[in-house]
Amino acid sequence: MGLIVQKFGGTSVADVERIINVANRVAEEKRNGSDVVVVVSAMGKTTDKLVQMANELSSSPSKREMDMLLSTGEQVTISLLAMALMEQGLDVVSYTGWQAGIETESVHGNARIKQINTDKIKNDLEEGKVVIVAGFQGVAENGEITTLGRGGSDTTAVALAAALGADKCDIYTDVTGVFTTDPRVVKGARKLLGVSYDEMLELANLGAGVLHPRAVEFAKNYGVTLEVRSSMEKERGTVIEEEMEMEQNLVVRGIAFEDQITRVSVLGLDNSLTSMPTIFSTLAKHHINVDIIVQSGTGTDKANISFSIKSGDLAETLDVLEGSKELLNYQSVESETGLSKVSIVGAGMISNPGVAAKMFEVLAEEGIQVKMVSTSEIKVSTVVEQASMVKAVEALHDAFELSHIPVNS
Amino acid sequence: MGLIVQKFGGTSVADVERIINVANRVAEEKRNGSDVVVVVSAMGKTTDKLVQMANELSSSPSKREMDMLLSTGEQVTISLLAMALMEQGLDVVSYTGWQAGIETESVHGNARIKQINTDKIKNDLEEGKVVIVAGFQGVAENGEITTLGRGGSDTTAVALAAALGADKCDIYTDVTGVFTTDPRVVKGARKLLGVSYDEMLELANLGAGVLHPRAVEFAKNYGVTLEVRSSMEKERGTVIEEEMEMEQNLVVRGIAFEDQITRVSVLGLDNSLTSMPTIFSTLAKHHINVDIIVQSGTGTDKANISFSIKSGDLAETLDVLEGSKELLNYQSVESETGLSKVSIVGAGMISNPGVAAKMFEVLAEEGIQVKMVSTSEIKVSTVVEQASMVKAVEALHDAFELSHIPVNS
Repeated sequence: MGLIVQKFGGTSVADVERIINVANRVAEEKRNGSDVVVVVSAMGKTTDKLVQMANELSSSPSKREMDMLLSTGEQVTISLLAMALMEQGLDVVSYTGWQAGIETESVHGNARIKQINTDKIKNDLEEGKVVIVAGFQGVAENGEITTLGRGGSDTTAVALAAALGADKCDIYTDVTGVFTTDPRVVKGARKLLGVSYDEMLELANLGAGVLHPRAVEFAKNYGVTLEVRSSMEKERGTVIEEEMEMEQNLVVRGIAFEDQITRVSVLGLDNSLTSMPTIFSTLAKHHINVDIIVQSGTGTDKANISFSIKSGDLAETLDVLEGSKELLNYQSVESETGLSKVSIVGAGMISNPGVAAKMFEVLAEEGIQVKMVSTSEIKVSTVVEQASMVKAVEALHDAFELSHIPVNS
Repeated sequence: MGLIVQKFGGTSVADVERIINVANRVAEEKRNGSDVVVVVSAMGKTTDKLVQMANELSSSPSKREMDMLLSTGEQVTISLLAMALMEQGLDVVSYTGWQAGIETESVHGNARIKQINTDKIKNDLEEGKVVIVAGFQGVAENGEITTLGRGGSDTTAVALAAALGADKCDIYTDVTGVFTTDPRVVKGARKLLGVSYDEMLELANLGAGVLHPRAVEFAKNYGVTLEVRSSMEKERGTVIEEEMEMEQNLVVRGIAFEDQITRVSVLGLDNSLTSMPTIFSTLAKHHINVDIIVQSGTGTDKANISFSIKSGDLAETLDVLEGSKELLNYQSVESETGLSKVSIVGAGMISNPGVAAKMFEVLAEEGIQVKMVSTSEIKVSTVVEQASMVKAVEALHDAFELSHIPVNS
């Protein structure tokens, strides 16, 4: 009932057979009495193939022409899905980004949506049509085709749901929902029936691309209720919304983790106000993502700064620091590889002091040394040795009783 | 020098390597000082693959959605070609049909171009850019993506040349030009350096899809000079324009032929004014293309009508005639398969009486019986037995001295 925006990703529409499966899901929703807007991505490996051709032609293809090229992928899917739905006897219309009125900034490769002119879609819905919209793409004021970058189709779906005042935005994917931790690693991992937007943001790297953080932020800002669910199985997924009545007794909702982490420490820096910003702006210029940052001021005129990076970025990081030695005026650089990050996430932490302490206790009991710590209101992250990562995750998953979530569906 | 529109078909842009080859051709023209607008088709078998997916989803896919689907093909090509040209250091911009201002009727699958808003392209050309436009597609006033049907990319190129007042429209293809007859069949076949629009129209079936008749008509109406040439070889092609100064002594310019022809005769028709129109409108309703029509009035109240069709249409033609026997009120139907059509084409015929007579003499000398005849101002067509077709073509090619065209390039 009401208006539902459904988003199907690339694997859900990878071939003709799966497109028919998607058509069945859409038709079912429509026959249940809902108005339906469907957002789709490019079919399976289409985007990869297009990128490959572009790379054969140019080592740094024009972003404008990449948008021109890649936006064809979703256009193929919308037309095929429309045909599949017409076979079911439904009244359907498909729109590219520009036809759907999705206006973006005049930026190529990573444009943000400025506004959506929903007149045409609203009119179609009133006429009883299922409206299919190409995800990931839009049009700038000057008539240029733009794309939204990573997570673009999720963003399109959420933005349409917000603009149309939809009752819900269902994100169909190849997993059945968001889990307490990675079920491939921890046997006791359980599907969560609900999480808050912020928890979802912190758990993002658990989802293996289930839902892009940008789309979650958009949903949070506009109060769009999301549900992550499987396009192949009919079971209930994970609902993401602001007020989480469900499972409210649960302080920690998920254990996130990530390997291939390296700690870098810059020692003997001038203890001035500009040292920190200079280090990190220099690294940012080289597109090196820094995660946890720990500053250990010593009260003297020299300071030490440690931060974590992906191990793959180590060589470049050391190069950058070496090249900026004069500018940064430090004494030495030290690094430690073979680390991992383990985090506990839960909105309940805010009102439950001692959660971080419990985490450290659990790790200590397991004999796991904590190398770095970072905390936010709903997350505590620790850096530990990679060899201890799975043991840490399992111990925390047990200690915070995530294997025993009451199923309250 | 001046402004040149270049059109490259699907085989010319079939893969990355060929796109680079096209980029070289375009860059050469640009560096020679011309302004260049390039029109491209979808890569090689792309359209076939898209059609196949559509057919797997629906036995009669929506024409609107087919336009949505197929128009992605050219969009891929324009962006890849743009990247290839940028690698050559050229300033380039690519446009889809709607971005290029190609406005069509609001018809799907076979729309005609209504007008082209050339402001954007003219501006780009003034800035020294090479402009690449997706062929075959346009946009209707209501914002719907349309396609132009068969020969669509040729039509786009010619229409752009007309709208921009281009000096020339080069149609690059996989043959080096238009020939006096099919070189695969007649060893002495020669490339023509020039033909008139009308001759090109009559020779169309010699070209094996070299240039679509619709584009030739468009060029004729707007006085656009065309040149059909090879995208792989650098030699001069065949120029198509109104005033043919070249080779003017040549009465016949080409021998066209076609096999798999069947003659159908409807005997004992009421000799009324309505018999003819009724037969052919009935056949047209069933999409049966009738070519040569011969009516042999006998002066009595009964008439006989013969016409030629493609042999593949025979079964349906007989069905239609049988089903309309009461309406048409004829006595019997007779048919003869295993025939072919051989035609001589040349604008010079108009002022040279006796050309048809010479054709019949040549065929008689070879012992070839003429079963049907049809004449126009620049063409004489005969229907002969299929077994005699090649002999007829060779004899006519010799008799009209086509093997000895003076090369006056």
